[in-house]
Amino acid sequence: MKMKLVGIAGLMVASLCCAQEGNFQPASTNVLDAPYPRVDSESRVQVRIKAPNATKVKVNFWSGPKMEMEKQADGFWTVTTPPQAPGLHYYTINIDGIEVSDPGSHSFYGGSKDASAVEVPEAGATYYLPQDVPHGQIREVWYNSSVTGSWRHALVYTPPDYDKNASVRYPVLYLQHGGGEDETGWAKQGKVNFILDNLIASKSSKPMIVVMANGYARRAGQPVPSGPPAGSPDRMRAMQQMMSTFDEDVTKALIPFIDSTFRTIPDRDHRAMAGLSMGGMQTFVVTFNHLDMFSYIGGFSGAGGMSIGGGPAPDVKTLYNGALADSTAFAKRVHLLWVGVGTEEPAQMRAGIQGFHKLLEDGKVQHIYYESPGTAHEWQTWRRDLKDFAPRLFK
Amino acid sequence: MKMKLVGIAGLMVASLCCAQEGNFQPASTNVLDAPYPRVDSESRVQVRIKAPNATKVKVNFWSGPKMEMEKQADGFWTVTTPPQAPGLHYYTINIDGIEVSDPGSHSFYGGSKDASAVEVPEAGATYYLPQDVPHGQIREVWYNSSVTGSWRHALVYTPPDYDKNASVRYPVLYLQHGGGEDETGWAKQGKVNFILDNLIASKSSKPMIVVMANGYARRAGQPVPSGPPAGSPDRMRAMQQMMSTFDEDVTKALIPFIDSTFRTIPDRDHRAMAGLSMGGMQTFVVTFNHLDMFSYIGGFSGAGGMSIGGGPAPDVKTLYNGALADSTAFAKRVHLLWVGVGTEEPAQMRAGIQGFHKLLEDGKVQHIYYESPGTAHEWQTWRRDLKDFAPRLFK
Repeated sequence: MKMKLVGIAGLMVASLCCAQEGNFQPASTNVLDAPYPRVDSESRVQVRIKAPNATKVKVNFWSGPKMEMEKQADGFWTVTTPPQAPGLHYYTINIDGIEVSDPGSHSFYGGSKDASAVEVPEAGATYYLPQDVPHGQIREVWYNSSVTGSWRHALVYTPPDYDKNASVRYPVLYLQHGGGEDETGWAKQGKVNFILDNLIASKSSKPMIVVMANGYARRAGQPVPSGPPAGSPDRMRAMQQMMSTFDEDVTKALIPFIDSTFRTIPDRDHRAMAGLSMGGMQTFVVTFNHLDMFSYIGGFSGAGGMSIGGGPAPDVKTLYNGALADSTAFAKRVHLLWVGVGTEEPAQMRAGIQGFHKLLEDGKVQHIYYESPGTAHEWQTWRRDLKDFAPRLFK
Repeated sequence: MKMKLVGIAGLMVASLCCAQEGNFQPASTNVLDAPYPRVDSESRVQVRIKAPNATKVKVNFWSGPKMEMEKQADGFWTVTTPPQAPGLHYYTINIDGIEVSDPGSHSFYGGSKDASAVEVPEAGATYYLPQDVPHGQIREVWYNSSVTGSWRHALVYTPPDYDKNASVRYPVLYLQHGGGEDETGWAKQGKVNFILDNLIASKSSKPMIVVMANGYARRAGQPVPSGPPAGSPDRMRAMQQMMSTFDEDVTKALIPFIDSTFRTIPDRDHRAMAGLSMGGMQTFVVTFNHLDMFSYIGGFSGAGGMSIGGGPAPDVKTLYNGALADSTAFAKRVHLLWVGVGTEEPAQMRAGIQGFHKLLEDGKVQHIYYESPGTAHEWQTWRRDLKDFAPRLFK
């Protein structure tokens, strides 16, 4: 206990020292002209919020430090973190026990709410930033899903020149967000458009259409997965129902809509699917169930083969109705199976993904395994995943 | 004082009574599966937030009631408002003196932050809701502005069938957000795409492209308008500089980008501009300065002729460098000048817009004047404005 207090005191001295010395700049994720949060060249983050009557204020980086903030004479509370990993970090501020968003930050849908986040630049990395290259567009579309019986919203990236040559048709990547996020995640948090613009400009990737759908697909009256207690049979049933509805929505409503609305090449050789976390699990279910529709498959921090909510250890022979059982046939049929994880992800997540990787290796199922160095279960991992994954598609 | 207390007590009884009787439904503006805020068929709004340790919690509807919330045994605070006007209402929750967003609500950029809002349906009104008609797309584009020296983000509505017939060219409406909002406002808050989809489907409006740019245009090093104190000469100068940079950005960077990226009809007879509040003021400055580029003009709750931050009473002969001085020539040159305001807007805003209307009448300048009944300086006014304005364009 004494050690801990000394540690906090040391940290406070450090933050006081560095707050004055640093070259802090407002984060790119801030609302217009908001001076905080800000980031210095050593990737330290300074957070500030006005709460003159509060007695205790903390900042909670969801995949990073949880630190007490210090009250200033002007009623603002501030804190400076140690150097952070690059990328977009969700955070909340806790004021006297209440978790709130930071009004200085734009909001990003994560954790099932519009949450604050701070972008920490990665030194030398420009692959997800706007460059002076031809730019594609992100398009909002609505489709009337016969599966869910509702209007559903999706985002579609069209590559540069899509509008310039009306005779060219393109392959399609279906790209899913994680749990607690939505179809806006890959555009707002992930910077999918800049990543693809840059990869296409350098001829590392083929020009492609990217479709980002909402992963929460439910029929009218279908139960809400977050309703029943975690780990309960009801929760598992609700998750499986949602999974099954999503599978149907993608294959029976979304894909026909995309193929009739955009100039796609509507066959399995020109259709990929990938997703992060929950979206990775969804990708494996949808693609292995429909190998007649997909031939490129990516799981970004998404464990494959794990039954949702636990269950018996998976067997590569029976998994996904035997889709992986014959590794020779699988290698001929599936052009790419890609699995990735960040080195700093929670142990349980790493174990799940590494377990799937081992299961594939043991079963001699051809695949790519990638680790993002130094990044957690966060967007920098998934941006890097996409940067490695996209150039392997449609070759 | 006694009267006021009785009034509040009466309201509390009413809200207790009705909270139990009502047929409340989660607002369409909520995040996935959030049960609150919710709205009943009489347009009463119930807000709820968890703050077990707070001593005083209030809800602050920016253009509506400011009410104390009541603590429940479970640590939640709740309140039920009297019936509200239809439309999207920004609000904040004040917990022990700190204004916070409601985690149950999606956020909408307004008041220079990502703010909570609740959508109160308008009985019988479907013009801004998704219908079973052909849908256009909202597209995100980035343009490298030579005026600001930065990448700028804009949203573009393309009408249904834009991609189906590559030989058709379309007229363009430039449509601006208000102060403290950004280019996402007309799409997220305004529902511009559904309004246009429905107007085009019923053949009330010509198919058109709608461009929504960010109204905060600044060169590197240009001062931030919100920096200097309100009403100060420095603030006025900063506002005028921003206005001038915006004018240049629209006419020298944005319009050339749009005309080279989309299939527009790039002439003044097929180019309109409108905006709300600050965007209305910007519209008048840009269009009257460039009547060679625009022939349809709309100000939605945006006073024309008022110098920013006050100044001498305007003279129709000298206003906007004399653009309105010759009403006969103006009527031949400008196909539409449209001015609107909500009946429940603050007195000062109504006075400014009615003053401009009177100035136009006295100067015999042909124009349309519209009042939105029962709505404030809020999005329902501007949705109705667009519904009246768009059918008058490009005829």
